[in-house]
Amino acid sequence: MTEAAEESDKLQKIVSLCKRRGFVFQSSEIYGGLRSAYDYGPMGAELKRNLMNEWWRTMVHGREDVVGIDASIIMHPRVWHASGHLANFADPLVDCKVCGDRFRADKAPRAPVGSAAVITLADRGRAEAAAEKLSKSMGLTLRRDGKTLHGAEVGSVGYVCPNCGSPLLSDERQFNLMFRTSLGPVDPVGEMIAAIRGALVEGADDAALRAKVEAALAESAVYLRPETAQAMFVNFLNVQQSLGLKIPFGIAQMGKSFRNEVKVEKFIFRSCEFEQMEMEYFCHPGEGPKYLEYWKNERMRWWISVGLRGDNLRLRPHGSDELAHYSDGCFDVEYLFPWGWDELEGIASRTDYDLGAHSRESGKKLTYFEQESVDPATGKPGWHFVPHVIEPAAGATRGLLAVLCDAYDEEPGDAEGKGARTVLRLHPRLAPIKAAILPLVKKDGMPEVAREIVARFLSAGINAKYDEQHAIGRRYARHDEIGTPYAITVDTQTLADNTVTVRQRDDRTQARIPISTAVEVVAHALAEA
Amino acid sequence: MTEAAEESDKLQKIVSLCKRRGFVFQSSEIYGGLRSAYDYGPMGAELKRNLMNEWWRTMVHGREDVVGIDASIIMHPRVWHASGHLANFADPLVDCKVCGDRFRADKAPRAPVGSAAVITLADRGRAEAAAEKLSKSMGLTLRRDGKTLHGAEVGSVGYVCPNCGSPLLSDERQFNLMFRTSLGPVDPVGEMIAAIRGALVEGADDAALRAKVEAALAESAVYLRPETAQAMFVNFLNVQQSLGLKIPFGIAQMGKSFRNEVKVEKFIFRSCEFEQMEMEYFCHPGEGPKYLEYWKNERMRWWISVGLRGDNLRLRPHGSDELAHYSDGCFDVEYLFPWGWDELEGIASRTDYDLGAHSRESGKKLTYFEQESVDPATGKPGWHFVPHVIEPAAGATRGLLAVLCDAYDEEPGDAEGKGARTVLRLHPRLAPIKAAILPLVKKDGMPEVAREIVARFLSAGINAKYDEQHAIGRRYARHDEIGTPYAITVDTQTLADNTVTVRQRDDRTQARIPISTAVEVVAHALAEA
Repeated sequence: MTEAAEESDKLQKIVSLCKRRGFVFQSSEIYGGLRSAYDYGPMGAELKRNLMNEWWRTMVHGREDVVGIDASIIMHPRVWHASGHLANFADPLVDCKVCGDRFRADKAPRAPVGSAAVITLADRGRAEAAAEKLSKSMGLTLRRDGKTLHGAEVGSVGYVCPNCGSPLLSDERQFNLMFRTSLGPVDPVGEMIAAIRGALVEGADDAALRAKVEAALAESAVYLRPETAQAMFVNFLNVQQSLGLKIPFGIAQMGKSFRNEVKVEKFIFRSCEFEQMEMEYFCHPGEGPKYLEYWKNERMRWWISVGLRGDNLRLRPHGSDELAHYSDGCFDVEYLFPWGWDELEGIASRTDYDLGAHSRESGKKLTYFEQESVDPATGKPGWHFVPHVIEPAAGATRGLLAVLCDAYDEEPGDAEGKGARTVLRLHPRLAPIKAAILPLVKKDGMPEVAREIVARFLSAGINAKYDEQHAIGRRYARHDEIGTPYAITVDTQTLADNTVTVRQRDDRTQARIPISTAVEVVAHALAEA
Repeated sequence: MTEAAEESDKLQKIVSLCKRRGFVFQSSEIYGGLRSAYDYGPMGAELKRNLMNEWWRTMVHGREDVVGIDASIIMHPRVWHASGHLANFADPLVDCKVCGDRFRADKAPRAPVGSAAVITLADRGRAEAAAEKLSKSMGLTLRRDGKTLHGAEVGSVGYVCPNCGSPLLSDERQFNLMFRTSLGPVDPVGEMIAAIRGALVEGADDAALRAKVEAALAESAVYLRPETAQAMFVNFLNVQQSLGLKIPFGIAQMGKSFRNEVKVEKFIFRSCEFEQMEMEYFCHPGEGPKYLEYWKNERMRWWISVGLRGDNLRLRPHGSDELAHYSDGCFDVEYLFPWGWDELEGIASRTDYDLGAHSRESGKKLTYFEQESVDPATGKPGWHFVPHVIEPAAGATRGLLAVLCDAYDEEPGDAEGKGARTVLRLHPRLAPIKAAILPLVKKDGMPEVAREIVARFLSAGINAKYDEQHAIGRRYARHDEIGTPYAITVDTQTLADNTVTVRQRDDRTQARIPISTAVEVVAHALAEA
């Protein structure tokens, strides 16, 4: 197998394990699934919670200078006007007039303007039908050769359809990636009908019609947030004032965001509904570069602290051509996914751009006052300024996929394949279940002892699960596949001397310890790790 | 003050504390706020997390028979067809032709059919204008007397406008409470324009036009989930099979749901974006009543366990007129909010209705197989059956409000009001911050010692916060208002003998303890409480 095939094979194996063991299911699978939406099963829900809780623990609880918020997903539409998402968060879409494919102009195959295009359809019949249609609708006669059509030329846009190679394309249309809906007891359909009726009476053309409809919709239109970050800017004053925070300080948020992606791909890596872990760190003007340096290192450390291998992580500085006009520096944390290096998190220096934009849009002063400082502009004591911002913006859903890829391992076993297993080497703090408590058999009082051990773990706040189904070997294998770091078995000897065996997931070694120390052994590993 | 006024005053005080101390802000406040959307500030985000984590701890981690999931908010539209939400999750809306108010027909003031209606407008000018408009648009002449209009009769619908008393109303229109949006790189506006253009050419009337538009929209329409529960039914097989679960078992989920409420009210109690904590407990046919009894008691116990006073909670059985046709029993857990008893959670016996509905809609068999049982219908071994369901469905956002109402307290202080304070008597496990670590002054090494104590708490997984701002009395008062159960102060004596004072929020008593036992004291209270 080639390296690329092996790696894609690895992703397939992870997808399969995710379904088999209850990590990730396709959303609404019984209805044929929904485009790029996923449901997290019992193991996936725990793993995602654990990853996101680790972020909160490090970024919020563990710091004096950062607080967390949890804002609404539907925000005021002017938020997206100020942020530029309404105007610019769009992909250029084009429809192919031959095969009907809808694609992104900026990702389409380039071809020299005026060059001859070869249009290739699935079969001869389709090519015939397409030629006939083009002749009827556009008065265009193409020469057919088997399933290909010849005689069309690449237009001034300089690209062709990625599916059939056709240069016969619709105009580009800006497709905004935000999901739009209507808030309030309104009747957008009725309003649209009225708007269109009126405009048609006036003899409006398509563009004028669309403008009327958009205006009618705009009155009640709201959007699902495409990122969590804007809430931190919009709430800057409320948060700073209610807690009396001093610069530098950060506001953090985790939660769902929504993007109506034209192309969804790579399992949960790029999907329309996903989770983010973002923080805005507000600092003095001029201190952006210092905190950019600080946060890029902190964030790399964090990804390593949750178990990702350093070899599979890198920091990629953005080139000046990649930077937004207002940004004076940006790094991506990239992970070596099965398909190659790809983004996990962006750490950007955003200067005073966002607070400035919201201040202009809202007419509210979004500044910070420092009594003890001298205003550099006037030289007088007391300084009002718009803080600068460093934004470490991580993908939680992507992080989860990276964690799964990093933890997935297959051991071939001996020469005959005996002892072969699949194991998820998850960081113990991320593991859905920290300890499996297993009665060797379902009788002789072993279940009772095992359940009593589970209760000890739970009262120590450690998620342990009782499991009595199937032979002990199958139970070990199951817990290896879901990444349970410890399996504690209650056997005949337990009944005699109150000891249990502790099996380690990673090396399958077993040791016998007193029941009374079992919680401590696992708790120690969780604290250490 | 009357009791009612006092109680509404209490809600106002809570709203004010929530803003002042960073619990809850109006969403997008700098843009004038968004209808019924709220952002949780640093304290509110922690409190909500803690409440929801307690639910997960009790309902998922603490039980052998329940697992958790985390499904997507945008589900396949057929889910809502099967569940009945597309057809029935609607309020009847009416527009008043006099004052323009839009209201719910089922909540409008009743009036006898054919009786004389008195229409009352804000002032004489408006009454004149309304009379003129009615005369022009409907050819209706009403007699004006000051700001009232006479001569209209109550129509066959038997209600009038709640704002002006007018019986001149639009037809009722079913307003579906689900938020609709479009998934995929589609152009719903373009499709609508095309649909309307085509229909107008054919001379369609309004109803036919609307049908065309709805059909054009339906192709890409998806909905924000109005409840989390359906995901448990849709994922029933995947979850049961991936974990090999045996009946009875439950599937739990927490998360956001969305309802485009016609009337939003009572702070965060009824809002368009809110959080739920729901569980579906699958059991054998015939065992519904037993588990309904079990879960209603369990859930009451849980609300008390998070600190709500028993006196402020009650279980209200649904009357047979309130029950859905498929349900054979339902209880509401109600809390005595400042405005009276209102719903916190519903615990419903839903029989096999939901799995049956999804099975019919999807064509998939959603049954459970029990090898060891005898099929009651055939008398043969091996029983395939559709499980019955008990659903404890709690409101997390409402729960949060109940917790705030229950915890809010004012102490009047002495005769001169000295020592008066506001205190949130939150359950320690819910408190945003478990311990405030306070250096008496910002010097003499006290901050260093205090920070070292914070580190001890954090490594024990307890959220403690360093706080050095303002005089110690103001810091105590601030932490009383956010419900911090313990304030630990580092003072001069600390530097000499490594002891600190521990102040209890509830009775303001102080004790001196060694630094080395501080974590233990708080941890003990968290485990006990």
